[in-house]
Amino acid sequence: MITEYKHTYCLTAAQCNAQREVAPATLIQQIIDVATEHADTINIGFQRMGKNSALWVLSRVAYEIKRYPGILEEYTITTWIEGYNKLFSNRDFAISDASGEVIGYARTVWMAIDKDTRRPTDLTHVADPEVVRTDLVCDMERPGKIRFPKEHNEASCYRFGASDIDFNRHVTSRRYVELIIDQLPLEVYDQCRMTRFEIAYSHESLCGERVRVMSGCDLATDALTSTIESEDGTQKCITRAWFVKREDGFSVPAAKLLEY
Amino acid sequence: MITEYKHTYCLTAAQCNAQREVAPATLIQQIIDVATEHADTINIGFQRMGKNSALWVLSRVAYEIKRYPGILEEYTITTWIEGYNKLFSNRDFAISDASGEVIGYARTVWMAIDKDTRRPTDLTHVADPEVVRTDLVCDMERPGKIRFPKEHNEASCYRFGASDIDFNRHVTSRRYVELIIDQLPLEVYDQCRMTRFEIAYSHESLCGERVRVMSGCDLATDALTSTIESEDGTQKCITRAWFVKREDGFSVPAAKLLEY
Repeated sequence: MITEYKHTYCLTAAQCNAQREVAPATLIQQIIDVATEHADTINIGFQRMGKNSALWVLSRVAYEIKRYPGILEEYTITTWIEGYNKLFSNRDFAISDASGEVIGYARTVWMAIDKDTRRPTDLTHVADPEVVRTDLVCDMERPGKIRFPKEHNEASCYRFGASDIDFNRHVTSRRYVELIIDQLPLEVYDQCRMTRFEIAYSHESLCGERVRVMSGCDLATDALTSTIESEDGTQKCITRAWFVKREDGFSVPAAKLLEY
Repeated sequence: MITEYKHTYCLTAAQCNAQREVAPATLIQQIIDVATEHADTINIGFQRMGKNSALWVLSRVAYEIKRYPGILEEYTITTWIEGYNKLFSNRDFAISDASGEVIGYARTVWMAIDKDTRRPTDLTHVADPEVVRTDLVCDMERPGKIRFPKEHNEASCYRFGASDIDFNRHVTSRRYVELIIDQLPLEVYDQCRMTRFEIAYSHESLCGERVRVMSGCDLATDALTSTIESEDGTQKCITRAWFVKREDGFSVPAAKLLEY
């Protein structure tokens, strides 16, 4: 059984963002893809879960990165299962460059829900203790509880369309991340690099739903904290992010990011 | 020299759209990616063009498809250069399933522009007559001139964000397609399959730009015709699309699509 799964990517020109690097939403999409491929390989993927009318739902993603892979660069995402309990499965990742040097890590938390009731299902029926790799190290802090600050910027509004919807009939994780990224102007990303990003998914969204996206500074952690919520105030997801100046690598205070 | 380049994809669960198929925007992205990979392989890619401060710009894409690859399905996109002249390069594609059966074709038209002046550059300096494959058949009609009808639906508005921008600092081809797709509700895609799609790119868009997206019926071709234009009325792109009912394969009149 493959307990440590690798996928090597090469970032084509067409896949780059404006900074000629892999975009955060693309990286998270690839993290999800690699997780899905590994799950398929060890027979806990889409098809097997479907037999129990269950499906995997992503609850949290966090990553920390020294530098983003650039244009035409090869990089490898390695994944393994760190552990699981009745409700959650923790899957970790290492991102390494072509020389094998680790340039980033990621942590994800997954749940399996019942297709019809949308309630969590017991993971102990699915997972096999043999897949767990406790010997591999994911050298980054675990994601913490994120609170949205009282003070925030003016909300931007968005209505989810058909192309935002995935095979589970809800809005993709990727689109959530893109809406959050779009809270800051392009100049911020030109001048600063997002070195750590955490997202907690709270509620699914449907096609046609209208949402508000807002950002503020979390004073305790000095993180840029953003949220997507429905018109009735239901939180869809909450994120926090830390940036450094590209020029000198020093951290950028969250408040400064919102002044751009 | 590789004059016929192939890339095999496997559609993971996470990459599917709501109909559990490859989304039109993803297919177009992959068509662009395969073109880019082939261009890199034969040394007319990003790096080589950059030396002449030129870059490839996509002018048109059209595809025709019998069925879209589904979840966990393997499919191959094959590309070759059909021909080129001073201004334009025609690159064709065949999409085939795992059994080798061709399920679709695509045609693209590319220009090379100067990075600084944004004016077209002479392709005869770049392209090599030996790469041209006149023996391969792209069995679909060439894209035609698209006119936007006088009568159309109410425009939806959108502001391009940082995550819509590519390495050329303009809005991605993919995002244009997604905005067009989002003109119709999810139910249309559940009940109908888009069998032919054409897009002509007219103007680049920048981060922060606001656009209007509108659709109407072209009476001459019975195509659903959509456009994205800036607030001052500059056309960014124009598309047309034909749909069939999934149930029985009969064509769906464009006017009916807009009634959903």
